[in-house]
Amino acid sequence: MPSQFDPPSGTRDFLAAELSLRERALGQLRSVFASYGFEPLQTPAFERVDVLLGKYGEEADKLVFKILRRGEHEASGEADLALRYDMTVPLARVAAAYGSKLPTPYKRYAIGSVWRADRPGRGRFREFTQCDIDTLGSMSPLADAEVLCAHHDAVAALGLTEFTIQINSRHVLSGLLEVFAVPPELGPGVLTTLDKLDKIRPEEVISELTSRGLDERAATELVAAMTAQDATERIRTALKPSESGMTGLEEVDRLLALAGSQIRPERIGFAPRMVRGLSYYTGPIWEVVAAGVPGSIGGGGRYDHLIAQLGGPDVPATGSSLGIERMLTLLSREAAGRPGTLDVVVTALSDDLAAPSFALAAQARAAGLRASVYLGSSGKLGRQLRWAADQGARWCLIYGNAEREAGTVTVRDLVSAEQEALPAAEVAGYLASRAAAHG
Amino acid sequence: MPSQFDPPSGTRDFLAAELSLRERALGQLRSVFASYGFEPLQTPAFERVDVLLGKYGEEADKLVFKILRRGEHEASGEADLALRYDMTVPLARVAAAYGSKLPTPYKRYAIGSVWRADRPGRGRFREFTQCDIDTLGSMSPLADAEVLCAHHDAVAALGLTEFTIQINSRHVLSGLLEVFAVPPELGPGVLTTLDKLDKIRPEEVISELTSRGLDERAATELVAAMTAQDATERIRTALKPSESGMTGLEEVDRLLALAGSQIRPERIGFAPRMVRGLSYYTGPIWEVVAAGVPGSIGGGGRYDHLIAQLGGPDVPATGSSLGIERMLTLLSREAAGRPGTLDVVVTALSDDLAAPSFALAAQARAAGLRASVYLGSSGKLGRQLRWAADQGARWCLIYGNAEREAGTVTVRDLVSAEQEALPAAEVAGYLASRAAAHG
Repeated sequence: MPSQFDPPSGTRDFLAAELSLRERALGQLRSVFASYGFEPLQTPAFERVDVLLGKYGEEADKLVFKILRRGEHEASGEADLALRYDMTVPLARVAAAYGSKLPTPYKRYAIGSVWRADRPGRGRFREFTQCDIDTLGSMSPLADAEVLCAHHDAVAALGLTEFTIQINSRHVLSGLLEVFAVPPELGPGVLTTLDKLDKIRPEEVISELTSRGLDERAATELVAAMTAQDATERIRTALKPSESGMTGLEEVDRLLALAGSQIRPERIGFAPRMVRGLSYYTGPIWEVVAAGVPGSIGGGGRYDHLIAQLGGPDVPATGSSLGIERMLTLLSREAAGRPGTLDVVVTALSDDLAAPSFALAAQARAAGLRASVYLGSSGKLGRQLRWAADQGARWCLIYGNAEREAGTVTVRDLVSAEQEALPAAEVAGYLASRAAAHG
Repeated sequence: MPSQFDPPSGTRDFLAAELSLRERALGQLRSVFASYGFEPLQTPAFERVDVLLGKYGEEADKLVFKILRRGEHEASGEADLALRYDMTVPLARVAAAYGSKLPTPYKRYAIGSVWRADRPGRGRFREFTQCDIDTLGSMSPLADAEVLCAHHDAVAALGLTEFTIQINSRHVLSGLLEVFAVPPELGPGVLTTLDKLDKIRPEEVISELTSRGLDERAATELVAAMTAQDATERIRTALKPSESGMTGLEEVDRLLALAGSQIRPERIGFAPRMVRGLSYYTGPIWEVVAAGVPGSIGGGGRYDHLIAQLGGPDVPATGSSLGIERMLTLLSREAAGRPGTLDVVVTALSDDLAAPSFALAAQARAAGLRASVYLGSSGKLGRQLRWAADQGARWCLIYGNAEREAGTVTVRDLVSAEQEALPAAEVAGYLASRAAAHG
């Protein structure tokens, strides 16, 4: 039930357990990308409206969060800034701004929030983390293979095992339209419909194709070829008369050969009907699909002229975007319970004993343990021990009047409930050895 | 010179060198906070306007970035959301939303961007990183001491050595106004002026105090007491008749005693004229001051009723805010040059050799080294070696036709320019031993 204290619609508060999980996952991704020599980039949360709008069409523009002008201009109701919608427009701006100061090729990753005013729904948020890797300035097929393998390694690093990578090429798709005699003006629509073969029945696809204006025979043949048992072989044969088709097959086979040295063969393959909606791709394209996740968990491809269309320099480019939120959802199903935030709790049994207790907690931290004194208002040992256990602490250091007189500290193991009195001077060494055994 | 490709006014792009430095620093802060048992919290970038506005007064409201309503409501020119202005308002909302699901006390840290439409200037940004630690739900003076020590340890962990911590208490300040017979209605203004004693001459402070309506004798006596050689002793004596003053001195002394077990004595002291502008503090207050940084690099104190004023539950609270941007500025002066992004570069001397070269880079990564194949268009070894050196790589693996025939890989040390041919089967082991020595 939404309350006035909920975060805004489509956004989330991340408390400790989930946030720790997310940060650990993002750290693993950073380390995979760094191992390939991708470097990090962070741009502002907002850009000037003219930088953001008009780049992906009207529908996308409607999803942009715009920021009102300020001061005397606020009353105008106009926006001068807008929240980041993706990581590619800022990349184009950075490529234009820093030019030759960037390395060539410029291999960067970007992990951060993007904001889209989509209708919120299950697994669909208005603020979500996007993770992109891109290489600007290289035409080499090795650059495509590198981005693809880094994407694969990132997914694997997160512990996902049940996923596959589908490879295709824009040239294969153009070749298909050519050999099945699809009129050029119908091409984009036909591809969009073919992309639905995984979701709806072949007859429905055929009827959607004819309703788009394709003649019934072409539609039936196309769908038959795509859905045959030996579809990839039939498509390979069918593409032979098309120059574009042959170029596409070469791109696919080269990528499969390069990536095949690092990716298990059952995880990767040619998928001639995988379209990847966006029209800006110019070469090989790929999509990562995981069991139990609707749609894909990311994908990418070569997009040689997009950076210029987005306002940057005209450089060849290839990149991949990871659907982090979906992966994190898969992972967080595994994470359960509240992680302990403390290893050691020190009692604070009276005002008098506050200072030495506080100093004991500092000793525990110096030994590498997470430690805090009791901060509540009860002076009772039982209450303080219960609180320590609630924090997930392993040890409680008890320092009362008896310990002060004896010059000792009582160390209680909260799991075994055993305790022993140690000379005060030995506590630091004892904790350090516990910490080493604990770590 | 600003260009159309610059980030919006008051914001910054962080490229690899600076971003790596920032992320390392933030990681160090997280680990200090975790060692005290503070847990992380992340809230959305924006909140509903009604949650944000009207909390810190009209001046602050003018600095809030507001987000236009969308779709059919966009034309209204109204805002329904606004970018986070600080970390405390979201904390109050979270405390209200999650209540008993949060641990008691709730010790959290928050590190993230906040946005303020201030006039940008040297070291003043519209998007900047804020870092707060707070404890909600404890009245214990140990909670104040813990927050203060965590703040101290965080500054020290970043490598800063030249800084001091000034301690005072709101009760000391109330006591001062009382014993120097300052009329209550002049109190806040008098404190604001006294806070300037570090910046302007005593005579100027006296004249500002009298222009605020304080009589000249009181103003002169007050400034004389505050600026005397033995100011803290004189203030201690002067406060004796005031109950509030004595309470304040007890707070200060208790905090000094507790924190004194962990902070070197020359780094911390009673500073009776430190005011910390914000009126919401209710107990001890502190400020961290560093050589070479105008103003402070953060501070905090106890603020027992603010969370309720901000829309949360009425819980006692204490916290500290770190001026990360200023510290990072200090640190980045030390960081120079562009860090290498790669340890190993593998040549790609012809299309034929692309696949085995690509696989060699994967071997190097598996050995724990950052590695990439050459992605440029030149087939010349010299060009590829030069590119490898430009990336800061330590080794280049050369794999040409000669190596292929001989079943070897040539490993070139880019620093010594020595090279040796290794049997292909030994490259992985060789790289692993290099990686271990390198790490």
